[in-house]
Amino acid sequence: MLSTCLSRWGYRIKHIDIRPEPTATGRADGIQPRSLDLLRNMGLKSAIMAHRPARVYEVAFWDPSESSKGIARTGTWASCPSFIDARYPFTTLLHQGHIERVFIADLGKNGTEIQRPWTITGFQTRNPDTSEYPVQVELQHVNGTEKETVNAKYLFGGEGARSFVRQQLNIGVQHKDPIAHVWGVMDGVVKTDFPDIKMKCTIRSQHGSVMVIPREDNMVRLYIQIASSTDADWSPRKTASEFEVQASAKRILQPYSIEWEHVEWYSVYPISQGISDRYTLDQRVFLGGDACHTHSPKAGQGMNTAFLDALNLAWKIHVVESGFADRQLLATYESERKAVAESLLDFDNRYAKLFSQRPPVASEVQAASETLPGAGLDADNAFVRTFKESCEFTSGYGVSYQPNALNWSPDHPAQSPLVQPSGTTLRSGRLFVIADVTRVADANVVHLEQEVPLNGSFRIFLFAGDPVKNRAALRDLADNLTSAESFYTAYARADIDGVSHHEKHNPHSLFFTLCTIFAAKRHDIEIAREVPSVLARYRHHIYADDRWDRRVPDSKAPAHAKMGLDEDKGGVVVVRPDGYVGLVAALVEGPGTVDALNAYFSAFCTKTFGKATCQP
Amino acid sequence: MLSTCLSRWGYRIKHIDIRPEPTATGRADGIQPRSLDLLRNMGLKSAIMAHRPARVYEVAFWDPSESSKGIARTGTWASCPSFIDARYPFTTLLHQGHIERVFIADLGKNGTEIQRPWTITGFQTRNPDTSEYPVQVELQHVNGTEKETVNAKYLFGGEGARSFVRQQLNIGVQHKDPIAHVWGVMDGVVKTDFPDIKMKCTIRSQHGSVMVIPREDNMVRLYIQIASSTDADWSPRKTASEFEVQASAKRILQPYSIEWEHVEWYSVYPISQGISDRYTLDQRVFLGGDACHTHSPKAGQGMNTAFLDALNLAWKIHVVESGFADRQLLATYESERKAVAESLLDFDNRYAKLFSQRPPVASEVQAASETLPGAGLDADNAFVRTFKESCEFTSGYGVSYQPNALNWSPDHPAQSPLVQPSGTTLRSGRLFVIADVTRVADANVVHLEQEVPLNGSFRIFLFAGDPVKNRAALRDLADNLTSAESFYTAYARADIDGVSHHEKHNPHSLFFTLCTIFAAKRHDIEIAREVPSVLARYRHHIYADDRWDRRVPDSKAPAHAKMGLDEDKGGVVVVRPDGYVGLVAALVEGPGTVDALNAYFSAFCTKTFGKATCQP
Repeated sequence: MLSTCLSRWGYRIKHIDIRPEPTATGRADGIQPRSLDLLRNMGLKSAIMAHRPARVYEVAFWDPSESSKGIARTGTWASCPSFIDARYPFTTLLHQGHIERVFIADLGKNGTEIQRPWTITGFQTRNPDTSEYPVQVELQHVNGTEKETVNAKYLFGGEGARSFVRQQLNIGVQHKDPIAHVWGVMDGVVKTDFPDIKMKCTIRSQHGSVMVIPREDNMVRLYIQIASSTDADWSPRKTASEFEVQASAKRILQPYSIEWEHVEWYSVYPISQGISDRYTLDQRVFLGGDACHTHSPKAGQGMNTAFLDALNLAWKIHVVESGFADRQLLATYESERKAVAESLLDFDNRYAKLFSQRPPVASEVQAASETLPGAGLDADNAFVRTFKESCEFTSGYGVSYQPNALNWSPDHPAQSPLVQPSGTTLRSGRLFVIADVTRVADANVVHLEQEVPLNGSFRIFLFAGDPVKNRAALRDLADNLTSAESFYTAYARADIDGVSHHEKHNPHSLFFTLCTIFAAKRHDIEIAREVPSVLARYRHHIYADDRWDRRVPDSKAPAHAKMGLDEDKGGVVVVRPDGYVGLVAALVEGPGTVDALNAYFSAFCTKTFGKATCQP
Repeated sequence: MLSTCLSRWGYRIKHIDIRPEPTATGRADGIQPRSLDLLRNMGLKSAIMAHRPARVYEVAFWDPSESSKGIARTGTWASCPSFIDARYPFTTLLHQGHIERVFIADLGKNGTEIQRPWTITGFQTRNPDTSEYPVQVELQHVNGTEKETVNAKYLFGGEGARSFVRQQLNIGVQHKDPIAHVWGVMDGVVKTDFPDIKMKCTIRSQHGSVMVIPREDNMVRLYIQIASSTDADWSPRKTASEFEVQASAKRILQPYSIEWEHVEWYSVYPISQGISDRYTLDQRVFLGGDACHTHSPKAGQGMNTAFLDALNLAWKIHVVESGFADRQLLATYESERKAVAESLLDFDNRYAKLFSQRPPVASEVQAASETLPGAGLDADNAFVRTFKESCEFTSGYGVSYQPNALNWSPDHPAQSPLVQPSGTTLRSGRLFVIADVTRVADANVVHLEQEVPLNGSFRIFLFAGDPVKNRAALRDLADNLTSAESFYTAYARADIDGVSHHEKHNPHSLFFTLCTIFAAKRHDIEIAREVPSVLARYRHHIYADDRWDRRVPDSKAPAHAKMGLDEDKGGVVVVRPDGYVGLVAALVEGPGTVDALNAYFSAFCTKTFGKATCQP
């Protein structure tokens, strides 16, 4: 993910992998709804979906039967219930090798080949704040025949739980849950009369517990807990043979039968929850993925969290290296992503406890699953609350970042009263809300949140409200955006006069894409008449907010309504390159709106702007 | 399309093409909504969409301005308005070469390579009713160096308007509209301030007329009428240079500017409306596509009609050759597809006249576009009526087949009173209605109409209604389906005992796939308890009708409701392999429902069944 983003944005990448080949079998497989959004935004989703992953919409719970021997289903719940406004409300399950190859192919298109089987033998950082290539890295072929020394701007260690880079940096790992486990995992094709074999299932029986996860190509994955550090005879080296795990699964699934036709992959490994003390020491050598956080595989979060670690770092390196943002911005990688990992571990524990206490009553699951936001959910019920949080977390939509220079809060230097206008449902540090709109130029119905590709640019969504009533505000916004002292002008492209008229996303600046959304019907919007020229230049990014949405069925401007923005007055939303809201501001006549944006960007950019009100 | 279907179904295909390479530039480009459904059903849609075709959602009309010089927009209308319940309510525009290559790649996977540049030099049919390979075909390389003689079961000529096969058969062509035209067509990249350059536009000015069609890769296609047989100086050989066409477009588009940056393809060709008298003489040598029908390119129907010609013939050849249907079934290819071509030519004329008389008033377009079915459309308004018909026709959803052995009518041999129960909105000979349902086995939300792939099987949709109230009817249906004298048993697979338990679509018969849809919530359906074993074997095809649909917002069983089937009583829908409804029957206790199906299939199958009531 990191190499893919940076290769696309023009950086030279040396990517080594200790394995001689891409993953052939096994390993990670779950892609959560938010990651599907991200892959779509990168244009990689369809290549992954072409492998026909299994899709998990519901999770089934099985417990010892009260009325007979064996197990019985106690309930099911939605994997991504309707209270989460997700574009793809399911998790896909697909072999990691297929996913890797999609990334590898994309890397190849951008000139990056993975060098394998190579490993890192040492590295050293000198003058990280002043040197252009401060990291010296020693690499060698695994058979020791070849060596290389690379002078790099950055080093990223995504080598997994036993990260050499982390160990060399003497970064410790904290274990939140003192209990360790040994897991057996088996991918294969089975013949069974168990009715939920195509569902994700958590099965508890008197013979032990198993988790069932459907896979592509008629396969199924079983996770079986083989040992726990709470066992009397605990050993982290305890193991079990393929045959023993199969026999165990047979006992657990009674009264249903299960026979293996083919075993694709089988592995036993100890896992303990752990989190790295630091993600970097010098903002030059970074860690991410399992090198920073380990946890049980049950919630399918490993690959997704690693994706988002890498994404978070990628765009920040880009905006720093391209001269847009202060180098200090890189410190937000650790603060943002370590907090997410801590939530993940915390969630991992609570998720386990949620079901160890008592199975939920059907009415609780119903209430929690089907309640739309604002419909009076019973927030006093601990189960419902934890259920909601866990769904938001596992879907990826619940991940949020704490206040900092990027994520506005009342402590942010941008102190305009226009920021975070009352009524808006958007929150700085959370994902932008999904919405359908109609593109004015070609009448295409599009997904607004996907309209700006993952290109390293901030996405500035101008919800323009009523085209007539708001005409002066929009004109003032355009005038102030294009004034000499604005953040927008400050980062204009050096080659601005030579940019092709076909350029859709970055005609003026590589760091911003402007989208204008009117609360009007498409055929009532005449770009030449309504839209100031700086915005009209993004003719591919002018939209009519005229698509009916079931979540706001009575609204005439559903996208405005979903964002909590007035359909007359609109508002401005700054979305970070990774899709998280940075700041929301009211759209008003006069310079106030752009002043607020100037102040926001001044907080982390290399320049300060116009009338920005900055606190020291 | 024909070769692709038959190759997939295991037939040996000799496919020759006179061109040395697949299409490099130009030619057809429009894929209508119904064709997108078909491509999706074949698993080819995503490969085509990967080329990022332009999507047409609306058509804009421009006429001489009343208030100034040049042209002005008089209105827009939806390309596939909401009264059509389309899964993909847009037309895609993509270079024919990309589409061809997707088919060629699929052919390759199934062992068929296109032999080029080869041509046909002669053919002869001997004993078409008794010989196994009655058609002797002479082929040669275009340079004359190599020759081949092929003994074939069938010969299909899809060689375009000047078809050698058609000429050899002495089949005449009728010209419905005596007026011929010369068209210029230009694909290229332009720079323009014309606001609708990304829309499909019909532009009429005092300097002539042009049609604008957006394309992939920033391209646009312009169609300009260069001459008409009504002109005083008419010549079908009149031509115009690239430069002349560009100059003409400049004049027509005033007051807007247009400059060409790149011309991809330019061609001038005369077109006259024509329709072939016959599509076959002996049910062995067939014609399809432009070999049978030619018309103006404006409505984008050429490739789509050719697709559907080929699809219609493909499955009929398959069911005849595999011993399922009588050879007489092949006669329905000409009767069904020639009637469609006649409608197309008729539509082509009316479409032109619709706008030559007067431009529609905005309120008419509004009324016609937004009215949902049954909401009291003003059917007396000729414009609204023609508009609706034209939308249905161009989208492909309006194409319907007349009564015959496949498409039930009161004259059909199947005379059961259970057929076509009152209330159903489905009509024999029209497309099955789209609906979302939840698959019980894995809780996936799926598109019911897409669940059975294009595999040559009839799709039998058992809308099972209420699982409790209808239990006896469903059991009786299952019992009668599996009785020795049923149509279902008659065509059981010879290898039925060796079929893998993973087989999803054809566990019992290669000619039928059964889908069972309950009017219940997914979690209330227990397959082992509710579903008779013959239906339960299709565990991938058991669904809960529990997905809310905006078109029937108050229904608890929206798919039942959309089909006009009672949510308690359900009904049985037989859908032909190409997606058109063959017959709808009530689902009742006793043998009546299966008797009706026996009678239906007896009308065109090689066997007769049970208690089928057949008229001589």
